[in-house]
Amino acid sequence: MTTTIDKTNPTAILLMHCPDKPGLIALVTDFINTNGGNIVYLDQHVDRIEGVFFMRVEWELEHFVIHRDKIEEYFSTLYAKKYEITYRLYFSDYAPKMAIFVSKMSHCIYDLLARFIAGEWNVHIPVIISNHPDLESVAKRFGIEFHCIPITKENKAEQEAIEHELLQKHKIDFIVLARYMQVVSEDFINKYPNKIINIHHSFLPAFVGAKPYHAAFERGVKLIGATSHYVTTDLDAGPIIEQDITRISHKDTVETLVHKGRDLEKIVLSRAVEKHIDRKVLTYKNKTVLFN
Amino acid sequence: MTTTIDKTNPTAILLMHCPDKPGLIALVTDFINTNGGNIVYLDQHVDRIEGVFFMRVEWELEHFVIHRDKIEEYFSTLYAKKYEITYRLYFSDYAPKMAIFVSKMSHCIYDLLARFIAGEWNVHIPVIISNHPDLESVAKRFGIEFHCIPITKENKAEQEAIEHELLQKHKIDFIVLARYMQVVSEDFINKYPNKIINIHHSFLPAFVGAKPYHAAFERGVKLIGATSHYVTTDLDAGPIIEQDITRISHKDTVETLVHKGRDLEKIVLSRAVEKHIDRKVLTYKNKTVLFN
Amino acid sequence: MTTTIDKTNPTAILLMHCPDKPGLIALVTDFINTNGGNIVYLDQHVDRIEGVFFMRVEWELEHFVIHRDKIEEYFSTLYAKKYEITYRLYFSDYAPKMAIFVSKMSHCIYDLLARFIAGEWNVHIPVIISNHPDLESVAKRFGIEFHCIPITKENKAEQEAIEHELLQKHKIDFIVLARYMQVVSEDFINKYPNKIINIHHSFLPAFVGAKPYHAAFERGVKLIGATSHYVTTDLDAGPIIEQDITRISHKDTVETLVHKGRDLEKIVLSRAVEKHIDRKVLTYKNKTVLFN
Amino acid sequence: MTTTIDKTNPTAILLMHCPDKPGLIALVTDFINTNGGNIVYLDQHVDRIEGVFFMRVEWELEHFVIHRDKIEEYFSTLYAKKYEITYRLYFSDYAPKMAIFVSKMSHCIYDLLARFIAGEWNVHIPVIISNHPDLESVAKRFGIEFHCIPITKENKAEQEAIEHELLQKHKIDFIVLARYMQVVSEDFINKYPNKIINIHHSFLPAFVGAKPYHAAFERGVKLIGATSHYVTTDLDAGPIIEQDITRISHKDTVETLVHKGRDLEKIVLSRAVEKHIDRKVLTYKNKTVLFN
Repeated sequence: MTTTIDKTNPTAILLMHCPDKPGLIALVTDFINTNGGNIVYLDQHVDRIEGVFFMRVEWELEHFVIHRDKIEEYFSTLYAKKYEITYRLYFSDYAPKMAIFVSKMSHCIYDLLARFIAGEWNVHIPVIISNHPDLESVAKRFGIEFHCIPITKENKAEQEAIEHELLQKHKIDFIVLARYMQVVSEDFINKYPNKIINIHHSFLPAFVGAKPYHAAFERGVKLIGATSHYVTTDLDAGPIIEQDITRISHKDTVETLVHKGRDLEKIVLSRAVEKHIDRKVLTYKNKTVLFN
Repeated sequence: MTTTIDKTNPTAILLMHCPDKPGLIALVTDFINTNGGNIVYLDQHVDRIEGVFFMRVEWELEHFVIHRDKIEEYFSTLYAKKYEITYRLYFSDYAPKMAIFVSKMSHCIYDLLARFIAGEWNVHIPVIISNHPDLESVAKRFGIEFHCIPITKENKAEQEAIEHELLQKHKIDFIVLARYMQVVSEDFINKYPNKIINIHHSFLPAFVGAKPYHAAFERGVKLIGATSHYVTTDLDAGPIIEQDITRISHKDTVETLVHKGRDLEKIVLSRAVEKHIDRKVLTYKNKTVLFN
Repeated sequence: MTTTIDKTNPTAILLMHCPDKPGLIALVTDFINTNGGNIVYLDQHVDRIEGVFFMRVEWELEHFVIHRDKIEEYFSTLYAKKYEITYRLYFSDYAPKMAIFVSKMSHCIYDLLARFIAGEWNVHIPVIISNHPDLESVAKRFGIEFHCIPITKENKAEQEAIEHELLQKHKIDFIVLARYMQVVSEDFINKYPNKIINIHHSFLPAFVGAKPYHAAFERGVKLIGATSHYVTTDLDAGPIIEQDITRISHKDTVETLVHKGRDLEKIVLSRAVEKHIDRKVLTYKNKTVLFN
Repeated sequence: MTTTIDKTNPTAILLMHCPDKPGLIALVTDFINTNGGNIVYLDQHVDRIEGVFFMRVEWELEHFVIHRDKIEEYFSTLYAKKYEITYRLYFSDYAPKMAIFVSKMSHCIYDLLARFIAGEWNVHIPVIISNHPDLESVAKRFGIEFHCIPITKENKAEQEAIEHELLQKHKIDFIVLARYMQVVSEDFINKYPNKIINIHHSFLPAFVGAKPYHAAFERGVKLIGATSHYVTTDLDAGPIIEQDITRISHKDTVETLVHKGRDLEKIVLSRAVEKHIDRKVLTYKNKTVLFN
C-alpha cells in the first residue's frame, strides 16, 4: 500500500542487491542509524543459489545528517563500489509519473484511474495514449490528456517516436499497458527497461500471444489466469510481477471467459502497478523480488 | 454475465420455486416448447431437505404464441396455483433501474459505474444518493443525478421519506449500498424486500457490525473477507449472495487491511449485483439459490 | 461426494449426451417417472456451440418396473437410437475397481488410501503396481497386493503386458497414476480410454513434460499448479478433470516448490478420482463436463 | 518446509522478540558473525503499533566458537537482559516429540502420519491418544503406541492425569489435536502453553464451538473454512496459526460440507504443525508471527 505521504517528514527508500556476504544488513543499517536516520521499513532476501543479497530499506530523513542530494554519492563512495552493490534510491515525497497505454477495453484503465483519483496511490498520471479513439471519453471524465496515436506496420517507428516525445515532455517514469493491443517495438522497450508493465490475460507461460481465452477454452482448462509482467523484447516472457487465477467450468464459453477474466486482469494489473509505485519490486535476471 | 441483449429477439426469464414433486421440469418445459418458445437456458435445483424445487428457465419470445403480457396470467392459471409455484417473470429487453447509496469511500461505486458505462450490465443507474457530499464529483464524472441527503438520528424518518420519493420518481427496481455507512430503517427495508444489496467488509457471520477490520486485526485472523447480502431488518444477517477472502499476515496493520479489503469489497459487491441484474438469484427463507 | 450407499435401495445413474433438441429432459424424466423411478439427482448442460446436450440423472430402483438388467436394452431401443444418444449406465451398489500406479513418492497414494480405508469412497482398490520397490511398505500397511514391475525402454511392451494381465485378473475398471513416473505406451492407453487418471505437477498447458517445478522456478512464476486429466496418447494433453494452484514467491527454491506442490497434487488428484468414482465426469471431444 | 537435516552440520535457531530500537539486527548478526557462525536464514518483523521487534535467525554451528550448551548463557548475559529480549533457542538436529490426540475421524491423523513416515518433517511421533478405540488400527498400521483414554465429565481430571503422565514418559514437546472431540481442561492447557495445536472446522471467529458445519449451513454462507490455532483456556480463541477456506454453494448439504471440509481441515492443520516443527511461529499476546 502506498503509505500516506507525510510531506513534512519524507523518507528515503533504498533498493539494492549485491553478492551475498556476512554483515551486509549491519553495514547498511549502521550507515543509516549512525547518521541519524530512523528506519521505518527493512526487508531482505538472500538467494542462496545465486549468492545474491537483496534489501529494501526505508528511513526518515528528518534527522538524517546527509543531505538527500548527497546520499547517493556517499552511499556509492562508502559502500556500493566496495561491495558491488547495485542500487536505486527513491524519496517518498516524489510521486512518479505514469503513462497509461490503452486500446478499446476500459476495465483496466477505470480501475487504475479510480485508485489514482481516490488518492490511493502516490503517483501522477499526466497522459493517456491509445491506438484507438474509443476511450477518449474515459480520459476526459478524469481530466487527463489523451492522445490517439494509431499504429500500423508501416508507421510504427514514426508513431512510437511521437509517443516517446510525449512521454519525455511529461517526464514519464514508467508506462502501464492497460490492455494495449499492440506489440511495442524493441527500440521502444529498450528505452524503458523494467519500466513498462503489461497485463497478459493468461497464467503465463501458458497461452502466450494472441487470443489466450480462445486457447484456454479450446484446451478445456478449469482455471483461467492473468499475469502482470515487465515488458522485455521477448514476447510475454518478461519478469513476472503478479499472477492470479479464477475458477471456470464446462459451462463457460469464450464470451464468459472474457467476462470473468476482466476482473482478474484489472486486479492483477493494479496490484503490480501498486508494487511498482511503492518501490517494492526489484528485478534480477528475468525474475522479480517483491517486498511486502 | 449479462448476455448481450438482442432487442429484436428478447427472452422471457422465469424464476420459480414450489414443493418438489416428479415431473416439474417436464411440466414447465412442455409449456414453453409446445407454445413455440425456444429454451436457451435451464438450471434447476432440488433442496431435498426442505422438499423444494427451484428453477430458472429462459426462452426466446420470437415464436412464442402467448403474448408477453399474457404469460403471467396463463402460467398462473394453468400451473402456479395448482402446484403452489412462487415465481417471478422478467424480460431481457427491460433493463432494471438501480440506485446507488454511498458515503465517502469511492472504490465500490467506481467499480459499479465503470461496468455500467462500459455496457457490461443490462441496467440503468438514474440516481446516486449519499449522506455525505464527498462523492458528488464521481456522480458528475459519469453524468448521474446526485442527491446529498444527510441522516441524523433525529431526521432519519423524514430523510428516508425523501429518499423513497426519489426512488419512486426514478422507478427504481433495486438499491445497492456501496459502502453506505448508515443503518437503514426497518420501514425503509420493508419497502424493498430482497431488493437492497449491501456489502459488508467481513466474512459474515464473523465481525458483524461496525469496524470489522479493527476486529479482524485484534483477533489475529489470517484471512479477511467481504460479504454481499440482501438487507433484512436483522443487521448483517440477510441472505448471503457472494463472499470472498484474501490472505493477510502478521505484517498487516488495520490500515493495510482496509486497503486490501477494498479490492475484495468491490469485486464481491459487483459479482452480487451482476447476479441480481441477470436474474440469477432466488431467495428462499434466509438463503440464496444462485444459478450459473 | 460418494453418497453413502444404501444397498437395500440402490440407484441407477445415467450419463448421456446427444445432439441438442427441445424436450430431451422431459423425454428421459418421463421414461423414469412413468416407470416408477424416483429421481434423486438431475443435472444437465447444453453446449450451444457444439449443439450437444449432456445430462446426468440418478433414480431409485426400488419401484422401477424395468429390471436393472433390462434398462440398457429398453433405453437403447426406445430412445438412444432415435435421438443418437451416447450413454453409460451405472448402479450405485457396484463399487468400481481401481488400480494405483506409483513410483517413489508416497504423498498421493497415502491420500488415496486414507480416503479408501476410511470408507469415504465407493471403490475397491485390489492392486498397486509400481516400477520401483520403494512403496511396497505402504501397500503392506493397508493390506493391498503390490507388484513391482520395473520398466525399461527394452522391456516396456512385455512389462505392460504383465500389468494388463494383472489388471484383467482383478477386473480393474480404472487406473490412477499417483505420480507414476513413466510414460505409458499408446497401446496400453488405448486399452483404457478415459479410464486412466493422471496427476501432472503444473497448471497445464504450462510446463508440459518433465521437471515442471524446475521450469516454474526458472520462469519466475508467482503461482504453481497441478492438473488431473485423463491420459490420452498425446503427452499431458488429455481432457482436464481438475486443476488448482498455490501462491509462491521469490523466496521459494525448487526444493520448496516440490514441497508445496505435494499438497496440491494429492488434493487435485483425489478430487478428480472422486468425481470419476461418483460417475460425475463426462468426456466429450478433448474436454470434460463435470456434474456437481 | 523442514529443511533436510544435515546431522554433521546442525544449525542453531533463535526466535526472539523485544522492545524495538535501532540496531537490533546488527546486534544479533554481529554476535553470530564475529563468533564464526554462518547465518543461513534471517527474517525479522517490527510491530510499530506495539513497538516490538521480532526476529528468527538461524546459523550453522560448525565454526561457531561458543559451544551449543553455552549459547543461551552467553546470549542471555550479553544481550537478553540488557535489551529485554524474550527468546527461545533450538537446534536443528533435535527432532521435537509430538503426540497426537484423536477421536473417531481419521482424515487429519492420516495426513499427519503420511508426512511423518515419508520423512517430510523433522519430528518424532511416539504416541497417539484417543478418547475412543476406533482409530487404534491407524496407529497400528504405522507402528505407533496407542492409548484409548475415554473421558467423561466425572473422570476427566484422573484421565487427563494419566495422559499427562504418558506425555511426560515420552518427553512430548507438543500436542496436536487432530479432530479430538473433547474440550481439554484449563489445568491441562496450562501445562502446555502454546504447545497444543488444534484444528477448528470453521473460519474463526465465525462458528465458535460445536457443529460449525451445521451453523454454516443454517447461515447460508458461500465459503466454509478451517482454522488451526494454539489452544488457550478461552474456547476456540487462541492465537491463530493458519486458516483457509473453500467455496460452497446452495447445492451443498451439511453432509457435503463435512465432506468438503475434511480436505481443508487436514491441510490447514498440517501447515500449522509444519510451521511449529520448523520453529517458524512466534506467539505474542494473542497473535502469531509466522516466518516464511
